[in-house]
Amino acid sequence: MSATATIDNDIIHTIGFDADDTLWHSETYFSTTEDRFRALLEPWCSHDETSKRLLDRERSNLSVFGYGIKGFTLSMVETAIAASDGAISTEAINEIISWGKEMLEHPVELIDGVEAVLDAVGAHYRLVLLTKGDLFHQESKIAESGLAERFAAVDVMAEKDADSYGRVLARLGIDPAGFLMVGNSVRSDVLPILELGGQAVHVPYAITWGHEKVKPEERPDGFLSLGSITEVPALLGLP
Amino acid sequence: MSATATIDNDIIHTIGFDADDTLWHSETYFSTTEDRFRALLEPWCSHDETSKRLLDRERSNLSVFGYGIKGFTLSMVETAIAASDGAISTEAINEIISWGKEMLEHPVELIDGVEAVLDAVGAHYRLVLLTKGDLFHQESKIAESGLAERFAAVDVMAEKDADSYGRVLARLGIDPAGFLMVGNSVRSDVLPILELGGQAVHVPYAITWGHEKVKPEERPDGFLSLGSITEVPALLGLP
Repeated sequence: MSATATIDNDIIHTIGFDADDTLWHSETYFSTTEDRFRALLEPWCSHDETSKRLLDRERSNLSVFGYGIKGFTLSMVETAIAASDGAISTEAINEIISWGKEMLEHPVELIDGVEAVLDAVGAHYRLVLLTKGDLFHQESKIAESGLAERFAAVDVMAEKDADSYGRVLARLGIDPAGFLMVGNSVRSDVLPILELGGQAVHVPYAITWGHEKVKPEERPDGFLSLGSITEVPALLGLP
Repeated sequence: MSATATIDNDIIHTIGFDADDTLWHSETYFSTTEDRFRALLEPWCSHDETSKRLLDRERSNLSVFGYGIKGFTLSMVETAIAASDGAISTEAINEIISWGKEMLEHPVELIDGVEAVLDAVGAHYRLVLLTKGDLFHQESKIAESGLAERFAAVDVMAEKDADSYGRVLARLGIDPAGFLMVGNSVRSDVLPILELGGQAVHVPYAITWGHEKVKPEERPDGFLSLGSITEVPALLGLP
């Protein structure tokens, strides 16, 4: 993050938006569920220890489960059994699964100002929605959000690295040099786009999942970090 | 299924292939896992009762979980707890989750003759791969199969009904009237395509998941059902 970093507006023709924690809330539901999970495991584990074990489990399961709530739920069940040395009740396991369903069925809550931002930039740029995670759940949320029509293309990606972005942009006929990505994750929305020669704006969410955290030494100089998505139009010289 | 049904070759320009149980084996791993699951629940439930409870659970979870192994695994855990009245051990629950991981990590096994079929028809038609299920797992399997380059486009769909096929075909610029779909599911690969005015060939797999089964009265007259995918080239008049 650098105060002097700017965007080169003149060459941008397409703007990509991340969805979870960029257009609508998501991590906050994971965080609330993790709080309940920490309370459930109190008889066996400190809150910090539970969080650490859960993140370790999620990370080691990532290559098998991918992203999303179903994998998170299975990781909670495994963590609960391991952390309690098998003593957790089946009633508690049912409760954990019910939390996963609650998260999957949670209504979509747009982040403040998102619609006005999309209206403002959509009048001047081609917009695409590039999100990561569980296809079924992402498609449900996209439909429920009512935002789909504002985007020329919507793509749910299994992973957000330079390779996968490169493939999606090529398929959509988007030259990375004229592409600006807006998202809450330095790892998933900023770094891969810079690597492809595009531009990126980081709009942090209140909470960052441990796996998405980037160490200070991995952060490049000179990408722009905004306080809110509502600052995007002004950044592009729009009212 | 009708012996007199034929394909109108002349108007076909694009052929869509389903993947699970059409290009590679899938249901057989679910079936093997279900056998282990039935054995695990023997102390509480007959095999038939276990299968019935599991299918009911999968169906009621479908609108929350969508398709795929993670949802199947969570449905097994819920079924085990309910069917054992909470008496199932946490060790057994861990075992169920390990089966899910085993399925997710199972190597892709192509159905006999698939590569030759794709070579034969790919020389004359545009091929697309239209599969359903978990994005992350489907993408892993597509990559591992080595078949991706044979297809002009690959799409993982959250659901396979006429609406979702209609959207994908429109996005790919495919006129349904010139489209032939090849797949193992009457419900997911045949009926929606016929509804869109396209053509479809049913190539049954040895096992059909309960949810994909179509009642006799729901089967239309006059769609073609082949014994093996290796019969597809001849159907199109190819050697």
